[in-house]
Amino acid sequence: MKIQRRPTNVLLPVPLVLVSVAGDEGSPPDIVTLAWAGTVCSAPPMLSVSVRPSRHSYALLQRRHEFVVNLPRARQARQVDLCGNTSGRDTDKFAACGFHPVAAARVRAPMIAECPINIECVTRHRLSLGAHDLFVGEIVAVHYDEEVLDEHGRLQVAAVDALAYVHGEYWTLGRKVGSYGFTVGDAPVEVDESEDVGPEPSAGAASGSDVGGSQAGAGA
Amino acid sequence: MKIQRRPTNVLLPVPLVLVSVAGDEGSPPDIVTLAWAGTVCSAPPMLSVSVRPSRHSYALLQRRHEFVVNLPRARQARQVDLCGNTSGRDTDKFAACGFHPVAAARVRAPMIAECPINIECVTRHRLSLGAHDLFVGEIVAVHYDEEVLDEHGRLQVAAVDALAYVHGEYWTLGRKVGSYGFTVGDAPVEVDESEDVGPEPSAGAASGSDVGGSQAGAGA
Repeated sequence: MKIQRRPTNVLLPVPLVLVSVAGDEGSPPDIVTLAWAGTVCSAPPMLSVSVRPSRHSYALLQRRHEFVVNLPRARQARQVDLCGNTSGRDTDKFAACGFHPVAAARVRAPMIAECPINIECVTRHRLSLGAHDLFVGEIVAVHYDEEVLDEHGRLQVAAVDALAYVHGEYWTLGRKVGSYGFTVGDAPVEVDESEDVGPEPSAGAASGSDVGGSQAGAGA
Repeated sequence: MKIQRRPTNVLLPVPLVLVSVAGDEGSPPDIVTLAWAGTVCSAPPMLSVSVRPSRHSYALLQRRHEFVVNLPRARQARQVDLCGNTSGRDTDKFAACGFHPVAAARVRAPMIAECPINIECVTRHRLSLGAHDLFVGEIVAVHYDEEVLDEHGRLQVAAVDALAYVHGEYWTLGRKVGSYGFTVGDAPVEVDESEDVGPEPSAGAASGSDVGGSQAGAGA
């Protein structure tokens, strides 16, 4: 039986990200934990993060137009929670978390050294929706910890020890139950269609090839 | 050691959703699998889905301005993959999946009876980003299968048997490692701040109370 309830945000699971931004002159960089985040475009690769205008990080995002999305490990849940429950106005979050800033390649925001995946973004759109503003960022570079890549440079999901946000709770991932395209063989029916739930190319060959790491070839 | 790779969409995990839309006159309703989806605003509650203009469902979304986001169970991975690898132009996806359409309360798109959570949405914004258009939908009603709610009407995450999209792979959830606010006690420091990674209120009391189901009170 279906039970109707009032409209609320129940989409799940959603990613948990630590967004790092450069601080103002003389101030440390800031980190904010967000779960209102998602992939929004394949080409160019883009993601979105939603931030309340009252947040300290919102003003920094507005001024800088550049940010890094750092994906935490499940064993960093304490830092994730801390960065979602303190403000950069009175807390140096890098120091509070024991995190170290590392210079990014393409943007002025710092990366969090301790996070296994760091995604450099440049803001391309901002949309005021109500309680939150949506920032659409183009992904301009990605960095991986060596240990989450296999010997061919492909991302090993299990090695990431990823964290998901599920209805107010932090959850680990469980087990793989299939790869994109498994019902139609190794190759998707249409590459064009496959990319709606893909592509998630691997970290890729050093050549920068588009051939992805999905075992089902969804990224091809 | 950090290894830099070309920019790709590596945000993970992201949700896997089955978006249902009303068909054209005389045609069955359509279902499309999407992973480029996310929560984007707390108030009003909003989510986004990104769709390629070449998709059959894109035209339907454009014309109808209404859709339902159905959250699948991990044991529905086959249907999820099928709806991502076939087109509604030549496939009746409800029939192909053994799914049954159920009338929604507020929109003309059908809900998928077999999915444990159904989120009714009305399109409020559309943004052309490149390969994908982003549709921002306001959530106007939510339906739950009775068995995913406890006796107080609170959502039981484990009962959902949720599915995540992780770098071309379908994954189950693992285990809960904390609740929002666990580093600062039961109550978040600031309700306003808590809502950046929340609120994810429970299915709620029949009163429609705003007090949520998060064990840490993040939805309060």
